[in-house]
Amino acid sequence: MRRILIDCDPGHDDAMAILLALANDTVLEVAGITTVGGNQTVDKVSENALKILTIANREIEVAKGAREPLIKPLQCAPEAHGDTGMDGPIVENITMQFSKKNAVEFLRDKILAFDGKTTIVALGPLTNLALLLKTYPEVKEKIEEIALMGGGYSIGNATAAAEFNFYVDPHAAHIVYHSGIPIIQAGCEVSHAASILHTEIEQFKEKGRVSGFVYDLLKFYSKFSEGLNLDRSPIFDACPVMYLLHPEIFTAKEHYVDIEISGGLTEGMSVTDRRVWYDMPKPNTTVLYDVDREKFIEYLSSAIFALD
Amino acid sequence: MRRILIDCDPGHDDAMAILLALANDTVLEVAGITTVGGNQTVDKVSENALKILTIANREIEVAKGAREPLIKPLQCAPEAHGDTGMDGPIVENITMQFSKKNAVEFLRDKILAFDGKTTIVALGPLTNLALLLKTYPEVKEKIEEIALMGGGYSIGNATAAAEFNFYVDPHAAHIVYHSGIPIIQAGCEVSHAASILHTEIEQFKEKGRVSGFVYDLLKFYSKFSEGLNLDRSPIFDACPVMYLLHPEIFTAKEHYVDIEISGGLTEGMSVTDRRVWYDMPKPNTTVLYDVDREKFIEYLSSAIFALD
Amino acid sequence: MRRILIDCDPGHDDAMAILLALANDTVLEVAGITTVGGNQTVDKVSENALKILTIANREIEVAKGAREPLIKPLQCAPEAHGDTGMDGPIVENITMQFSKKNAVEFLRDKILAFDGKTTIVALGPLTNLALLLKTYPEVKEKIEEIALMGGGYSIGNATAAAEFNFYVDPHAAHIVYHSGIPIIQAGCEVSHAASILHTEIEQFKEKGRVSGFVYDLLKFYSKFSEGLNLDRSPIFDACPVMYLLHPEIFTAKEHYVDIEISGGLTEGMSVTDRRVWYDMPKPNTTVLYDVDREKFIEYLSSAIFALD
Amino acid sequence: MRRILIDCDPGHDDAMAILLALANDTVLEVAGITTVGGNQTVDKVSENALKILTIANREIEVAKGAREPLIKPLQCAPEAHGDTGMDGPIVENITMQFSKKNAVEFLRDKILAFDGKTTIVALGPLTNLALLLKTYPEVKEKIEEIALMGGGYSIGNATAAAEFNFYVDPHAAHIVYHSGIPIIQAGCEVSHAASILHTEIEQFKEKGRVSGFVYDLLKFYSKFSEGLNLDRSPIFDACPVMYLLHPEIFTAKEHYVDIEISGGLTEGMSVTDRRVWYDMPKPNTTVLYDVDREKFIEYLSSAIFALD
Repeated sequence: MRRILIDCDPGHDDAMAILLALANDTVLEVAGITTVGGNQTVDKVSENALKILTIANREIEVAKGAREPLIKPLQCAPEAHGDTGMDGPIVENITMQFSKKNAVEFLRDKILAFDGKTTIVALGPLTNLALLLKTYPEVKEKIEEIALMGGGYSIGNATAAAEFNFYVDPHAAHIVYHSGIPIIQAGCEVSHAASILHTEIEQFKEKGRVSGFVYDLLKFYSKFSEGLNLDRSPIFDACPVMYLLHPEIFTAKEHYVDIEISGGLTEGMSVTDRRVWYDMPKPNTTVLYDVDREKFIEYLSSAIFALD
Repeated sequence: MRRILIDCDPGHDDAMAILLALANDTVLEVAGITTVGGNQTVDKVSENALKILTIANREIEVAKGAREPLIKPLQCAPEAHGDTGMDGPIVENITMQFSKKNAVEFLRDKILAFDGKTTIVALGPLTNLALLLKTYPEVKEKIEEIALMGGGYSIGNATAAAEFNFYVDPHAAHIVYHSGIPIIQAGCEVSHAASILHTEIEQFKEKGRVSGFVYDLLKFYSKFSEGLNLDRSPIFDACPVMYLLHPEIFTAKEHYVDIEISGGLTEGMSVTDRRVWYDMPKPNTTVLYDVDREKFIEYLSSAIFALD
Repeated sequence: MRRILIDCDPGHDDAMAILLALANDTVLEVAGITTVGGNQTVDKVSENALKILTIANREIEVAKGAREPLIKPLQCAPEAHGDTGMDGPIVENITMQFSKKNAVEFLRDKILAFDGKTTIVALGPLTNLALLLKTYPEVKEKIEEIALMGGGYSIGNATAAAEFNFYVDPHAAHIVYHSGIPIIQAGCEVSHAASILHTEIEQFKEKGRVSGFVYDLLKFYSKFSEGLNLDRSPIFDACPVMYLLHPEIFTAKEHYVDIEISGGLTEGMSVTDRRVWYDMPKPNTTVLYDVDREKFIEYLSSAIFALD
Repeated sequence: MRRILIDCDPGHDDAMAILLALANDTVLEVAGITTVGGNQTVDKVSENALKILTIANREIEVAKGAREPLIKPLQCAPEAHGDTGMDGPIVENITMQFSKKNAVEFLRDKILAFDGKTTIVALGPLTNLALLLKTYPEVKEKIEEIALMGGGYSIGNATAAAEFNFYVDPHAAHIVYHSGIPIIQAGCEVSHAASILHTEIEQFKEKGRVSGFVYDLLKFYSKFSEGLNLDRSPIFDACPVMYLLHPEIFTAKEHYVDIEISGGLTEGMSVTDRRVWYDMPKPNTTVLYDVDREKFIEYLSSAIFALD
């Protein structure tokens, strides 16, 4: 049983990731959820976190986090996630309340109060984690690893070089990658491998409460890829959770990864040293390269249906 | 009566600043002191804070803060401040303890627990303040202003363009200058104007307990300037405190100041828009330009002797 | 007798500089003029160079140079110099032709064909000079010095940190400052000291051919400063020429100056190391600080009238 | 028959490229060779160019070019190419002379004097080409395309992000990629695909004059890869020449490529926009992705033997 804290900005794919974790509660204990401005403003994505828990009928504490990145102004992604940050499904009768602590305090308390080590699953910009690690460095030794969605070893999406989460807050990503905590990185490449075919979305139609929610999520979410004439959509944020559940379906390599914080063409890029070269730096990251797509979708679907 | 919290990295000139504040306790209430890695490591400068309070025989809470800047590795200044960060005087029989809170929590609690507004006096790298403002943005409306030593409108000292405190943690300075809180900036220029002639140091010799401590401080501290064939030494950190006590001896202008965080020749520079130009940005900073040196030294000396 | 080549982008103040040089032909031999895109496109400023020579009734070869900076796209200053780059006076009956050589070849040939050393007077972005020095480095030993208008030791005008000529082509300025050739730099500060009071413009009214041209120039040019509620206008480009004629009316210091080419707040800034510090870099530039304004205007006016 | 000018810094792989071109003189007319500081100083690599022509017994004009990059100081690669830049073979009795023109003038004259268009093959840092394109932009319309070795769409070698040639002079690469001339880019990836197995080197042993030279070249050159426990060595610079001869053995894609000139982790990186995304920039580069290694080595070997 691995204890995790999920820091996220739901987000359609965050929702998939959270549902995947919740469905596997014999393997992963979700000790709390924190939110951060990213796909949409922190207020909107925090509401979305409550919606997901409401649909899944699970009581897990949610603490709201950073409104904006460390240095840059917040940049959201309404073109992919809509005005609410999780357009598509309608969820009503939300009765849950937010924690009175902010995300940083909440994470600190959850980590320090537990005897063992906790794994952080980070699905949005890394602002909360950066503030946590710098303000309360004593948590470091109680973090098992950080499994995150972000970066890419050879491509970006927000820009030619940078992936969205790292582009939004490159300085936070820099702090996390220099923290000394082991990192599992699901970047753009493995996320694209972990795509759902648009035809596969139909399986969720007119099934149960959770699968119906997922159907509505994915019908909206797939429009972005359809607009690019693609037949599938990457379920980015589900990757790090899936890796914790089924590492055997992934390929990965150990690399030294650093984050570009300069303001040119490559701001927020995860610079991955993949050279075979003399005097290479010591790896700090397990970089996921590829995944067995069919198994990925199979495990993901099973999880959704298990929650119905 | 103005309530202040002093964030510092003592430091010879930090010591002067703290003593100046303590001596003027009918005008300034020192509600606490926090420390940050800068002139020396946070452990060393925190010890120095206790030494200063011990010499002054004042019980004020001290909370230890950031070990290192947000992004850059810590760079200290032993060439100016020696191995302890406050070489020169020997202080023994220190019985005070540090607060159990770290600087960020301590500042938050002190600010929020007080009904009115508090002024922050910042004398080192701005790491603690940046973490405070990003993690607990609710403190902003209860901060009256930030009176700091850092930057310069036309010169640097750590580099040709950047002053030491801002050079050590440019990202923290960037966060503070973008916080919306009014800033009073004592930079390199006014600090040089606020110099003590090396001949003036002799007035403190073989006087009382505090003045003897100051004598030892300044004898060590003046060596750096003497090595440059200068006849005086700038008492940098005393400037923002002196401004709170005697604004009438300073000249100042309102400017928009931003902080360069790029890695070229100007990293950490306080870029001060002093143009007479169209479409100028709105000022965010009161930039101190000059000070009546003789009055400055007179007030400073009186304060020291008052503590004897 | 000092032999000079003038590289410029006329420009109202370039015109003043050229006229000042031409009037002092017993001291300065103007061996040629080259043009560069800056205040306006290279085609427009090249036409303006011919206009100035036509008004002054002098036959000096003009070679057209770089259309655009090394790296950045060209940015002009129509807000100050108008659509033609030298709005105000009308000059007709221009019969002069441009050299068949481009500016870089022209400069090379003029410099190498002469037995002694030549001084370069540079009044625009340094694109031509940078290309010259990198393509034909053999010219370096035959260049006496480069007297230029650009930069500033403490202020900018295009941005808070950078002066226009260096901001337009920072990479070219970087190349020139790293060339090893002695540089005389008239930056923003001395240029502002070298201002003509708007009331002093009237002396040129309804006088001769050249002074009438100057009157029309300055009436247009002064509008920019008037819009800022200023009573005077800086004659930027006349400064380096005036320094070659009357160094005694200037104050100056030797500094090491480097050019910031990073893309943050300070791109194109002339970073001037004015510290009194240990291990200072060797000066590469004579930085002009101030000028006796009244003498400056007196010498300038006399030159104009001498050409009538 | 395609007319080419080869700009290079020999260099073991430059030598292979030049020999490959010379052997195919019914397809490629080598109209001249220019040199540039890169693998070694310009003096050393220029000597090497003469050695290659001497061994091949061909009289082709060689013009020496830039000693150093536009902005950065020159950085050579003696660890790969030895002290001479082409360690291994001994070549004596060199009687050829360098052109009296420098590389930039030589390239301009060769390009403008020819009725048709010329292809530039660029195998070193792009300093000469950048100076050519900025000083004599009239050559642009007479350049068919620039086939170059440099960059990489997903990896570097000089750093994690940047390939050697572009890292040495990123500003020159930036100028070339913004010139509007079609570019064929053989970067790190296709160069690694175009490797010679160390066992394949033996075929050149104790054969003729040219193959013996190649044997000595490759025996030295392969040491670098052997030190990394690799069984093969990339023949980087032969790739763009081979593409001109046998495009059918390569795979390639059209992309928009820009060059990072900021000073962080990614300086000199060829930022290749490989996204499937909205509003993609128009491609400016044919990026070579892969090559049929066995055919590559077969064609290369045949060329060497044909010169014996």
